[in-house]
Amino acid sequence: MLHGKQTWWFDKRPVIIGAATVVGPDEGEGPLAADFDLVHPELDMQQKSWEKAERLLLEQASEMALKYAKVNKQQLQFYIGGDLMNQIISNSFAARTIGSPYLGVFGACSTSMESLAIASLIVNSGSGEYVMAGTCSHNCTAEKQFRYPTEYGSQKPPTAQYTVTGAGAAVVAKAGKGPIVECATIGKIMDLGITDPFNMGAAMAPAAVDTLQAHFNDTGRQPKDYDLIVTGDLAGVGHPIAKDLLKRDGVPIDDTVFGDCGLMIYDVEKQKVQAGGSGCGCSAVVTYGHLLKRLQQGELKRILVCATGALLSPLSYQQGETIPCIAHAVAIESPMHN
Amino acid sequence: MLHGKQTWWFDKRPVIIGAATVVGPDEGEGPLAADFDLVHPELDMQQKSWEKAERLLLEQASEMALKYAKVNKQQLQFYIGGDLMNQIISNSFAARTIGSPYLGVFGACSTSMESLAIASLIVNSGSGEYVMAGTCSHNCTAEKQFRYPTEYGSQKPPTAQYTVTGAGAAVVAKAGKGPIVECATIGKIMDLGITDPFNMGAAMAPAAVDTLQAHFNDTGRQPKDYDLIVTGDLAGVGHPIAKDLLKRDGVPIDDTVFGDCGLMIYDVEKQKVQAGGSGCGCSAVVTYGHLLKRLQQGELKRILVCATGALLSPLSYQQGETIPCIAHAVAIESPMHN
Repeated sequence: MLHGKQTWWFDKRPVIIGAATVVGPDEGEGPLAADFDLVHPELDMQQKSWEKAERLLLEQASEMALKYAKVNKQQLQFYIGGDLMNQIISNSFAARTIGSPYLGVFGACSTSMESLAIASLIVNSGSGEYVMAGTCSHNCTAEKQFRYPTEYGSQKPPTAQYTVTGAGAAVVAKAGKGPIVECATIGKIMDLGITDPFNMGAAMAPAAVDTLQAHFNDTGRQPKDYDLIVTGDLAGVGHPIAKDLLKRDGVPIDDTVFGDCGLMIYDVEKQKVQAGGSGCGCSAVVTYGHLLKRLQQGELKRILVCATGALLSPLSYQQGETIPCIAHAVAIESPMHN
Repeated sequence: MLHGKQTWWFDKRPVIIGAATVVGPDEGEGPLAADFDLVHPELDMQQKSWEKAERLLLEQASEMALKYAKVNKQQLQFYIGGDLMNQIISNSFAARTIGSPYLGVFGACSTSMESLAIASLIVNSGSGEYVMAGTCSHNCTAEKQFRYPTEYGSQKPPTAQYTVTGAGAAVVAKAGKGPIVECATIGKIMDLGITDPFNMGAAMAPAAVDTLQAHFNDTGRQPKDYDLIVTGDLAGVGHPIAKDLLKRDGVPIDDTVFGDCGLMIYDVEKQKVQAGGSGCGCSAVVTYGHLLKRLQQGELKRILVCATGALLSPLSYQQGETIPCIAHAVAIESPMHN
């Protein structure tokens, strides 16, 4: 690996041998509904609290991912996961149920690709045979923790994003059938001084651009080497900003190739989701539900998922701090490629 | 690596080429004061908020660690860190200052060894040349977030622990002079049903024991293979419990070899710290400040640091949940060994 590079090359070609997604009612009414393994018709999922519901989503996604991968809990060597909750409590409780050695991570909505990158690094380095990455978010737990009491039903500006209720998990193995994790580009903190938590897409756009540029520089690849490049959840405000910044910097990505998980998961025109989706679950369920299936079928040959995270806390916002943002990108190849 | 194992062997022998610690006034009055690089005489460190003070601790420790390692910010390939704050905000802001690609992690007080384990894995696998691990905690930010308003000065039971004000950072490299990171054992969640956040030592003791046993099983080593085995911060209540559990399970560790960072950092009899120290900064400053110096001088040949974490959140506690706990252990060897 060359000096100064921020991309890990997975030369042993670790494979995603099983993945699963579980979502809530809004995601079940969106355009990708058919790609999710389980859709809950109610936000409370018959649990006593939203926090318990969020945990259930992840436990169910993990259990199904292991089942699809034909890996039992005793074979699973490590679980890597995180979420938006204070002290990533949904993952700590789910990791108790999963039972394997556990590494908690946090990158806000970029946690999906952060955990997949670390899981792939562990497998690629021979430090684990079966490693699972997972993450989750719930609209009501996020609303309550980051914004206002959920019951209050506060109005939001159109730049705000709607936290996805959903969980995704993927089992990475050194061999097997499934999409291949080629490489991962780890992002730097970008902070251009935005303080408005209702405009996180704009805050995160420069982080996505920085990581995408680093990815192209490190790998020598160009946007045309991918059938699809998706940002995590920049949504309706942030995604056009990222597009403009990339164009300005001489790395334009064609509209037909450049998407955003926050725009894909909902029918943004019809569903009341402001600028689009966000939350750890957003890029996780779009990638592990929708995109992996298209890679599996050979409909997509190679994709780059650049998951973005706004690393604010309610306290940092209240204290007038700006929003540090980050993005991590993972390149995944179809098993039918070559 | 054998199936079912939870230990990473670092066969390339990554080296801690530089480390630094910064602490607050209480730690500066404790028995290890002379081993810390910088002692702040005031808890506010002339910052406008305790949160800014906590961040400053980590920024100063990181800067000094890089200086001692003779690595500049451009050479640093990755920074791995986390803390106790909601959304690990101290690390996200410090990572903005550090400027390198960043992976946020969370394992409560076990974050010190979680981040060192991941940093060492990255270096060992050839995925990075210089990687820094860091963590921090501040007594007043933790008190305010997890317990009561700091100014309230609430009384605490003697089983409670006192959050360390301090930060530690270590630069891991593939070659150079310094203590060698031999291997890391990644822990599982242990939860024996304790719900009292004022008795975290007792809650965490089974996690420490589980990880220590896994370490001995995986490596074929015995307690006698180490000059010193320290738990992260079980303190006065938890450490004797861990000792008893290990004895019961047939892996007794002699008192002369078995210590605890939470008991070492303060004069528990004289300083008003209840059962002893805790917090992400506790095992970080004891390891990177005190223990690395003793390894460097050859006074200790080989140590095992088993950092423990109580993964509760104020919300999970309020909702009546038990406290999931974890411990990660890292073995470090003196450069003068062999």
